[in-house]
Amino acid sequence: MSASQQDNRPWNGWGDKDKSLALSADGIAYIKRQVGTAPPLANATLEQALASVPESKLAPNPLYSLDRELRLRHARGQSLPDWLAMKSGRFEVFPDAVAFPRSSEEIRQLMTAAKQQGWQLIPYGGGTSVVGHITPCASDKPIVTVSLSKINRLLDLDRVDQIATFGAGVNGPFLEAQLQAHGYTLGHFPQSFELSTLGGWVVTRSSGQQSLKYGRIENLFAGGQIETFNGSVDIPTLPASSAGPDWRQLVLGSEGHLGILTEAKVKISRLPEEEFFGVAFMPNWQQGIDCAREIIQQRLPLSMLRVSNTVETTTQLFLSASESQRQWLSRLLKLRGVGDDKCMLVYGITGDKRANRAHYRQLKRLLRQFGGVNTGQHLGKKWAQKRFTFPYLRETLWQMGYAIDTLETATNWSNVAPLTEKIESSLRSGLEPFGSKAHVFTHLSHLYGDGASIYTTYLFPVADSYDETYRRWQRLKQSTSRLIVDNNATISHQHGVGADHAPYLPREKGEHVITSLRHCFDYFDPEQQLNPGKLFKALDNTPPSSTSEANTHQSSSPDASVQQELQLTESSQ
Amino acid sequence: MSASQQDNRPWNGWGDKDKSLALSADGIAYIKRQVGTAPPLANATLEQALASVPESKLAPNPLYSLDRELRLRHARGQSLPDWLAMKSGRFEVFPDAVAFPRSSEEIRQLMTAAKQQGWQLIPYGGGTSVVGHITPCASDKPIVTVSLSKINRLLDLDRVDQIATFGAGVNGPFLEAQLQAHGYTLGHFPQSFELSTLGGWVVTRSSGQQSLKYGRIENLFAGGQIETFNGSVDIPTLPASSAGPDWRQLVLGSEGHLGILTEAKVKISRLPEEEFFGVAFMPNWQQGIDCAREIIQQRLPLSMLRVSNTVETTTQLFLSASESQRQWLSRLLKLRGVGDDKCMLVYGITGDKRANRAHYRQLKRLLRQFGGVNTGQHLGKKWAQKRFTFPYLRETLWQMGYAIDTLETATNWSNVAPLTEKIESSLRSGLEPFGSKAHVFTHLSHLYGDGASIYTTYLFPVADSYDETYRRWQRLKQSTSRLIVDNNATISHQHGVGADHAPYLPREKGEHVITSLRHCFDYFDPEQQLNPGKLFKALDNTPPSSTSEANTHQSSSPDASVQQELQLTESSQ
Repeated sequence: MSASQQDNRPWNGWGDKDKSLALSADGIAYIKRQVGTAPPLANATLEQALASVPESKLAPNPLYSLDRELRLRHARGQSLPDWLAMKSGRFEVFPDAVAFPRSSEEIRQLMTAAKQQGWQLIPYGGGTSVVGHITPCASDKPIVTVSLSKINRLLDLDRVDQIATFGAGVNGPFLEAQLQAHGYTLGHFPQSFELSTLGGWVVTRSSGQQSLKYGRIENLFAGGQIETFNGSVDIPTLPASSAGPDWRQLVLGSEGHLGILTEAKVKISRLPEEEFFGVAFMPNWQQGIDCAREIIQQRLPLSMLRVSNTVETTTQLFLSASESQRQWLSRLLKLRGVGDDKCMLVYGITGDKRANRAHYRQLKRLLRQFGGVNTGQHLGKKWAQKRFTFPYLRETLWQMGYAIDTLETATNWSNVAPLTEKIESSLRSGLEPFGSKAHVFTHLSHLYGDGASIYTTYLFPVADSYDETYRRWQRLKQSTSRLIVDNNATISHQHGVGADHAPYLPREKGEHVITSLRHCFDYFDPEQQLNPGKLFKALDNTPPSSTSEANTHQSSSPDASVQQELQLTESSQ
Repeated sequence: MSASQQDNRPWNGWGDKDKSLALSADGIAYIKRQVGTAPPLANATLEQALASVPESKLAPNPLYSLDRELRLRHARGQSLPDWLAMKSGRFEVFPDAVAFPRSSEEIRQLMTAAKQQGWQLIPYGGGTSVVGHITPCASDKPIVTVSLSKINRLLDLDRVDQIATFGAGVNGPFLEAQLQAHGYTLGHFPQSFELSTLGGWVVTRSSGQQSLKYGRIENLFAGGQIETFNGSVDIPTLPASSAGPDWRQLVLGSEGHLGILTEAKVKISRLPEEEFFGVAFMPNWQQGIDCAREIIQQRLPLSMLRVSNTVETTTQLFLSASESQRQWLSRLLKLRGVGDDKCMLVYGITGDKRANRAHYRQLKRLLRQFGGVNTGQHLGKKWAQKRFTFPYLRETLWQMGYAIDTLETATNWSNVAPLTEKIESSLRSGLEPFGSKAHVFTHLSHLYGDGASIYTTYLFPVADSYDETYRRWQRLKQSTSRLIVDNNATISHQHGVGADHAPYLPREKGEHVITSLRHCFDYFDPEQQLNPGKLFKALDNTPPSSTSEANTHQSSSPDASVQQELQLTESSQ
């Protein structure tokens, strides 16, 4: 496979070259009012970037390709540091080769060679990681990125057991197309759905927009086959077991350290008779949170529920509605007691028609009880049409001189409002030392009986250089990540650890827990050849990177001082 | 604490001394017709058993008690080998001391001393293990059994997060009493509910009768505190996380190997507005299975569903209904097309009244669709009243000369009927070489989208000695356990591994998976002082026990030849 055979993805951005998300003049004006403007940074051309790809450390071999463009196209994910690297053309580290195995057998051959030759292997799904999962770390050893894109077929569909077996490289649309042709769905719809893959979902513990009905990938992953340096391991599809710890739970979140997942068996559902989405507006953020909590704790079986805070609601309306629409909506809501603090609540109802009607009635009662106004399905349809388009906004904003990123976590209900306030405040004030500011807004995207995830978006004008823009991002990311793990919340609810979150993991899990997990993984990968520098980075025995090095945008890891500070906090507890 | 302060438990059996389960003359006659009769074996007296308790290896210490009766009362669980040991008075191995710590601090003191002095520690919850979890293995090292019975209070109840914190030694009734006083329930009701404890449920991955609504203990365990040889480890109550593998999942099923769970935080639910149980009869076993699968795969939110096969249904009716009741039921069912192959289906509906009505309507439609006849709530009430009394049947039968035991597993739907047939056939024919037979019946007790648990009961006349009775049981247990793991099923769906299931674990999980888990546990317990010989027994470096030793009833582990055979099967795959 050569680069020209690649799909329609841009080499330095998200999604499909032919798709984009336009912003209205109103939306642009709104953003300018919040954070001002800045001249956009110049983008490198593909030719400029390709010129920086060094010679591979590897000799030609039928096991992989040395094609420069392929190496470039598999060098970065979709984190903001990745984005800055791609746009500036300063990728710095590249894989030495990219492999496109077509079967478990070919992966075994590759792993045998890797073990013998000491290659590092980076499993690559859709390249959608926003935390540096697939970004190679500088190494003396050759690095082979292993794309699973050729292992993407529906291999078996068991209607009795409701289990489907897929090649783990299958992406969201192809997975659903293959299942829906038979009347089934997996129901896993993360925002990255268009590009991300089943194998990637499993090893990073992904969560889809309708996890309220279908569950997180932890609940959908039934078993499969993983190729390790100790050979193939079959993971049986036992519906439940008390036979010691469930090893599936170690594959989930292993981020490549156990081996390469080649086949994934997943629990599927029949296609629902009916599905619809709707939008309601709550009087304010606290009532939105309280209403969502009540809905969940009463176990009302919706398929989706998310609550935006006031700033996100306002921002969404500026970006997607005209002035007359906004005024009409505002008048309507005010008549019914919902004013300028309004918070948008998006719900999904999925199932058979009769049950849906009953659940919808119950939902409307609860919305009224918390002062909410249901606007029905019109806005819900619009939401559903655009559910996977948000990532395209980054390109639109970039061309206007803005950088945009998100942070997400989960915590118990009683901590949701206070922690949201802390996160937003940290992001809003974080650029003050640079004389700049960020526009920050939040929604709760996944809800549980005991808590919720918090999904915060922040956008800010680029600085006058890539380096300086990276430094500003780093400042926001580091201080807010630190704040999250210091406040009884997880460093990631749905994006994983990768390189970017690794320094915060010991604070979350504790050193002993991390070390014990590492013992388990090292049994399968004693030389740490599998995706090194991810997940457990902070515990590596390699010396911490120097401050000067880390302060350039080439490194996506927090600087050494932060790392040391975190470790001090940890050990002084 | 001395033995006289113990609760009302018999020293050599199940439950409460003042409770028993009588059998009707009809029920007794039915059993006799199935398997014949045998003279009961003579029971040892407590005095005889106490006389066999050896001197403790330990010197007196305020950390524990050396009381002989306490050591005897904490030496065995409730497996059939345990039962034979207790009834014969031949316990063989006793703990050297029993500790009753009152706090995490006292557990830390105990663990510090254990580490320094090389004691082995066996965490003890309700002593209800049916697979040898708490039975000490012969050792040169002193063994201290650590009862959690004094650590059993509700420590915190968070109504916003719906999380309750308990001392891990709390048993089922006391846990529910403390929660229900505040309007909440955990909803975890295993058959051992009266005696088993929260900590025990967690470390053995227990499942309750209403797991269909409330989930298995894996779904209810939010976090807590575990005391390890590396200090206290706090397990945070994150509602969900993608920050690497979930360490809670290693605590679940750890069977004491990580440390002693002292506090458990659990996800609670509001008490339901209404709950009822009902009974329907399906025309035959296959239609019972198919109907149950359809109910589950349509996601009808019942709180419980179990399906008994024809023999279990017949047996239940003989044991619990009079002849006139049976005839009346039989006539009624025949009129509606359900004949002698009838299978009982017990369902539970739990929630608010309006939703319950809707779900009940949907259930009745599905029952009709599969030819079932709903008899409503009368028999359901009887079931609910007796839901925890089944274990008392063992004593009643024992006094009549019968031994009774159960085997349970879980597998995918397409394997449920074939595997049930294999298990029953193995148990039914297993005593032929001894000129005896077993009465065998089955129900599906826990249902999932992708499969179900299979719960098989077998009873047989005792032989003319304890040794020979044990040998017969061992024959049934070994051959059927082997059959289970050779047929894509788990060695345990809800009872755990302990000593009795340990030899089958490598076949189920694979040697590499076992070893990797062991690496993780050994980090916390490098000298394997915590509950040695359980969970991972088959991988111990100690030489396998000799056949002659294993063939006496003192050992509850399969004999060495079976162990070797299993390992051969494993390595030849």
